[in-house]
Amino acid sequence: MIVAARVGMVGAGQLARMSLAPATALGIELHLLAEADSDSAAQVARSVTIGDHRRLDDLLAFAKAVDVVTFDHELVAPEHLEVLTGEGHVLRPAPASKRFAQDKRHQRERLNALGLPVPAFATVTVAAEVEQFAEVNGWPVVVKATRGGYDGRGVWVMDSPAEVVARRQELAAAGELLVEAFVAIERELAVLVARRPGGQAVAYPVTETVQADGICRELLVPARVSDDRAAEAAALGLRIAELVDVAGILAVELFETAGGLVVNELACRPHNSGHWTIEGAATSQFANHLRAVLDWPLGSTAPMAEAAATVNLLGPSDGSDPLDRLPAALAVEGVSVHLYGKAARPGRKLGHVTALGNDRADARARARCAAGLLTGEETT
Amino acid sequence: MIVAARVGMVGAGQLARMSLAPATALGIELHLLAEADSDSAAQVARSVTIGDHRRLDDLLAFAKAVDVVTFDHELVAPEHLEVLTGEGHVLRPAPASKRFAQDKRHQRERLNALGLPVPAFATVTVAAEVEQFAEVNGWPVVVKATRGGYDGRGVWVMDSPAEVVARRQELAAAGELLVEAFVAIERELAVLVARRPGGQAVAYPVTETVQADGICRELLVPARVSDDRAAEAAALGLRIAELVDVAGILAVELFETAGGLVVNELACRPHNSGHWTIEGAATSQFANHLRAVLDWPLGSTAPMAEAAATVNLLGPSDGSDPLDRLPAALAVEGVSVHLYGKAARPGRKLGHVTALGNDRADARARARCAAGLLTGEETT
Repeated sequence: MIVAARVGMVGAGQLARMSLAPATALGIELHLLAEADSDSAAQVARSVTIGDHRRLDDLLAFAKAVDVVTFDHELVAPEHLEVLTGEGHVLRPAPASKRFAQDKRHQRERLNALGLPVPAFATVTVAAEVEQFAEVNGWPVVVKATRGGYDGRGVWVMDSPAEVVARRQELAAAGELLVEAFVAIERELAVLVARRPGGQAVAYPVTETVQADGICRELLVPARVSDDRAAEAAALGLRIAELVDVAGILAVELFETAGGLVVNELACRPHNSGHWTIEGAATSQFANHLRAVLDWPLGSTAPMAEAAATVNLLGPSDGSDPLDRLPAALAVEGVSVHLYGKAARPGRKLGHVTALGNDRADARARARCAAGLLTGEETT
Repeated sequence: MIVAARVGMVGAGQLARMSLAPATALGIELHLLAEADSDSAAQVARSVTIGDHRRLDDLLAFAKAVDVVTFDHELVAPEHLEVLTGEGHVLRPAPASKRFAQDKRHQRERLNALGLPVPAFATVTVAAEVEQFAEVNGWPVVVKATRGGYDGRGVWVMDSPAEVVARRQELAAAGELLVEAFVAIERELAVLVARRPGGQAVAYPVTETVQADGICRELLVPARVSDDRAAEAAALGLRIAELVDVAGILAVELFETAGGLVVNELACRPHNSGHWTIEGAATSQFANHLRAVLDWPLGSTAPMAEAAATVNLLGPSDGSDPLDRLPAALAVEGVSVHLYGKAARPGRKLGHVTALGNDRADARARARCAAGLLTGEETT
């Protein structure tokens, strides 16, 4: 087999699955470290190693077979990442970059130190300190586990001292906690940046992310913000990518508030907010992630249409599988369906639908129509 | 594993390789019958059976594991196709459709019987009959093996009786022969049609194919023809798809001559002339082939830009591998590189580059620039 480069991706979820197409096109041998053959990407990839990303031995053996190690998720223990780097393996992003996504306290402290916009925050070790923070900053407050949360897990909005007391055991089990001032969100945005190790970076058009229950439901491009705000968001994304010293894709989740933009989370990997780029940008986030981690020239992030909309397919509440309704959805003009090969469970992300169009409303309507046909449910 | 459908593709070349991405997106399990693990698509596919498409037993065993059998090439013997159908396997396209691509005599006779534009032709069994044909229709003539030729192989342009004599042994070895009037070609075109078993069909925008030495070098969309000519070509493609009763993609290669359009070859599969559709059309030929063979609704063939150009990457004459020059080519703005994972040999199709743009000249210039950087050679 003749390949340009060997990239190892730890994790074989849908992000790895959607990385396979650009890897194939570019002659990149993409190896996956999967938990099981049934993992989303393991179902369709040629080079799959079954292993446990929590076991250092598995990680070390996996890293030996590739030129560069990258990630489908944020779950590899920081101490393991350090050992891999110490053994001479090339990790992109590097452990120090990954920490911005893995450790919310670290992220808040570093961004705050540079004057970048984050909510008022404090680290707390006992529930009583949450109340102290709220006395200064007002109720409600947001309490977060500094590590391990995602898609709304590990995050609690608390309205009163009584709620803190009621959730005391849950908080105690969550490890180190961060408490933050509640931010009145007008809109959620995301900026994706692809960055090479040397620093060359490109930002994608700012994406509006429509969330419900802490899970991203829809993406809209262009976001419904002013040009100035979009430019500000892009500049913020590029500045944070520099700070994080990321190699690969960095996703910067932002809140738009009455007082301006506030940083929410960072992810050092391809990200749900960039799924529209597969059809909607000249180079997808998955292609640019591979190009970036290999230190190859990055591709254009120019949009391919006036507007793009992506609707995530969440498992229907009746447990049915969108696969069974696929042909009906394909009859909707100009939609692209991506299924992740995952067993249907209510609320689980099973795929997404993207539509491009001349305006956002048209693209959104078509994407929603196809998504509704796939799930048999009304979309948000 | 949860899949919408199981499609078996006989052959694992670059057409199969480029079919993997849409199969993955649509939850289709794409099984490949490959000659070797090193085949272009076998390198990156999950479900690969090593076998010989010339052996009926291998074909029968392969067909048992899938819902629908389709093809990456035209090489399966017609009698094997008939047996597969007889055993109850679903072949799309069906053997009778495939015959139009496999048997040039059959194609010419059927098209001619319906008054569709083909050159004057005759079947010949001995070299002397070539001369008789030329006496009536004039020199030069084109002699073709009715079966097995492609990319210029199995085709001879002959200028004189002396040349027929000189090539007598070569012709005798080529099996049944077709002799045709030489057509003065102003331009070569291709129409791709995707068609469902029930007859629903869509045509892609007519593609101009730039050939040299019988090998396609470049694709230009839109083709440099009048709107009327483009419409005529599309209508001809759709009519032939109906005649062929194709399920899947049908490629109709056309000559534009002073006297109008003339049909050259047919291919019942995704085709080199459609590679621009990966980036350049709302639905790629590979996605629509899968949708068509599964009898699912077809996707829009609308172009994604004003113009598209594709340049094939042929192995450089010095034997070097374009892979080694990939990063330099990726620096060219707005090009998409597709490599096939094939060992570099002079003249071998190793990949292609597509550029979209606001006009054909711009797209072509960028695609040529990237292709030139990849091969280290000037493009046509």
